[in-house]
Amino acid sequence: MSQNRSDVIERVCVIGGGVIGSLFAGHLSQVAEVSVLTRRQEHADALNASGLRVSGRSDVHGSITASNDPAAIPPFDLGILATKAPGLEDAAATLEGHFADATMMTTLNGLGAEEIVRQHGEWPIISAVTFMSGTRHDDTHVEYILDTETWIGPYEDTPYESVEQAAALIRAAGLKVEAMRDLRPAQWSKLIFNATVNAVAALTGLPHDPRFAAEGELTDLGHLVHDLIDEGKAVAAKAGIELHDDPWEMNVHATQRGAAHYPSMLEDVEAHRPTEIDLITGALVREAERHGVDVPLHKALYRLVKAKEESWS
Amino acid sequence: MSQNRSDVIERVCVIGGGVIGSLFAGHLSQVAEVSVLTRRQEHADALNASGLRVSGRSDVHGSITASNDPAAIPPFDLGILATKAPGLEDAAATLEGHFADATMMTTLNGLGAEEIVRQHGEWPIISAVTFMSGTRHDDTHVEYILDTETWIGPYEDTPYESVEQAAALIRAAGLKVEAMRDLRPAQWSKLIFNATVNAVAALTGLPHDPRFAAEGELTDLGHLVHDLIDEGKAVAAKAGIELHDDPWEMNVHATQRGAAHYPSMLEDVEAHRPTEIDLITGALVREAERHGVDVPLHKALYRLVKAKEESWS
Repeated sequence: MSQNRSDVIERVCVIGGGVIGSLFAGHLSQVAEVSVLTRRQEHADALNASGLRVSGRSDVHGSITASNDPAAIPPFDLGILATKAPGLEDAAATLEGHFADATMMTTLNGLGAEEIVRQHGEWPIISAVTFMSGTRHDDTHVEYILDTETWIGPYEDTPYESVEQAAALIRAAGLKVEAMRDLRPAQWSKLIFNATVNAVAALTGLPHDPRFAAEGELTDLGHLVHDLIDEGKAVAAKAGIELHDDPWEMNVHATQRGAAHYPSMLEDVEAHRPTEIDLITGALVREAERHGVDVPLHKALYRLVKAKEESWS
Repeated sequence: MSQNRSDVIERVCVIGGGVIGSLFAGHLSQVAEVSVLTRRQEHADALNASGLRVSGRSDVHGSITASNDPAAIPPFDLGILATKAPGLEDAAATLEGHFADATMMTTLNGLGAEEIVRQHGEWPIISAVTFMSGTRHDDTHVEYILDTETWIGPYEDTPYESVEQAAALIRAAGLKVEAMRDLRPAQWSKLIFNATVNAVAALTGLPHDPRFAAEGELTDLGHLVHDLIDEGKAVAAKAGIELHDDPWEMNVHATQRGAAHYPSMLEDVEAHRPTEIDLITGALVREAERHGVDVPLHKALYRLVKAKEESWS
């Protein structure tokens, strides 16, 4: 272990070995003892045998203790929940009654992951929003593509000190991170961005590219993207959230970054997997109803993506 | 030729040998001299060699004169334009300067086909809306599946007598047809129905089935279908059109008919072909703008389908 790891968090468990989970696990393995709770036993076997390699923006290779059985996971101080939305409920249920001393950090898109975790235990919870991206090459190799920030903040009465400790560890591991006293402005910026971009990509089959910002012709997609973002901003305003970033500027900026990004929801659609629509667009639509704001376009896309999921089930 | 053909229309040319064109050509070959202007020469060769067979709701087999060259098509009294929307402009251009004595009948979905034909000649034009459907098995065999009506009416100053003569011939050929003095109420009913059902099917991958009428849960697709139809009805009302049928009732009725229908736009999407969206949803959006009616949901679906077309081009 390196010298500059946190004095407090020595053991981390990453729950879910997808792209985001692997990026956390691979980097954190350089500064902490890292375990990974996988869904598949073969995945755990491969990690135990070969460790985990991160290429691309980083070049690290760490040893990992992995299992698909929570009873075989050693005690840990920080749990990072990095499943996909449809897998969160099951993952949180397997943690129930275990690891009472741990703090749990949720890194899922959308809103509502914290509430799902809370239903299964009294752990302090840290909320996170991550803009990292990567490509999973196989069970023991992930490529780090966008080395953008992860923002973290306290959920309910989690002490801000815990958030700062987690941020220090993540930073020491070589990832970009910012601790915030109130994460909701950032969470909502990303919620509105994702509810818009992911659903449009899922329905059109287009990666997130400059067409999402084009507003020249009547049929240009940027008009729809802009209208969806405006609906989302109206909900945030009514909910009393002052957004951390303007989602339209996030959209324009992201589409100017060069290589078009494939939103995970588009990958899910192409693989005929359940999407994260309920935790993203669904969360925005529920917030809109709670605050009495009409969001006809987000409701339309919510229904279209749900119907698309039914087309292959 | 049978005895009960029209006294006036003796020679028919069908332009476009897809499902609808083949259904017209096969039936009309029983009561008139029928030629078919095809896109592919092999298709014409096959029709010249084997004639055209209709199975399913009918069982007829007629001889056909076919070519992909308008110069090789014998003179005709009635031309039936039955191309897909993206092929209409080219087809009308090949007719320009020919067949001055003919009356042309457009059978395409949406609005605007008549204007495209008019740009290429002064022929009298008959507007048609058809609810027939079938399956094309090969170049010389089409199966007649839904033996529903075709409605026809005059365009501009075409004499109603010509419409009645065309209706008499089509009826004599064994197809269901109704002549109307004003086709617009029927055309608009089908426009609103198609703009809604085709775009939703194209984006979700679902055939037109009972989910299009389900309005129980928040995410049920029927809510979106209903909202889209209500937007369309608002445009029709502002345009002074009293609809022939209520498009929501058409939707509910069609989804209760048993076997789910695959809208042609869904087939186009699955085959990565250009769709008819510009002549259907595009026409409705343009009418909405002309009459100052806001149609945010139809505009959203228009942009999504256009973007989907771009995803494979």
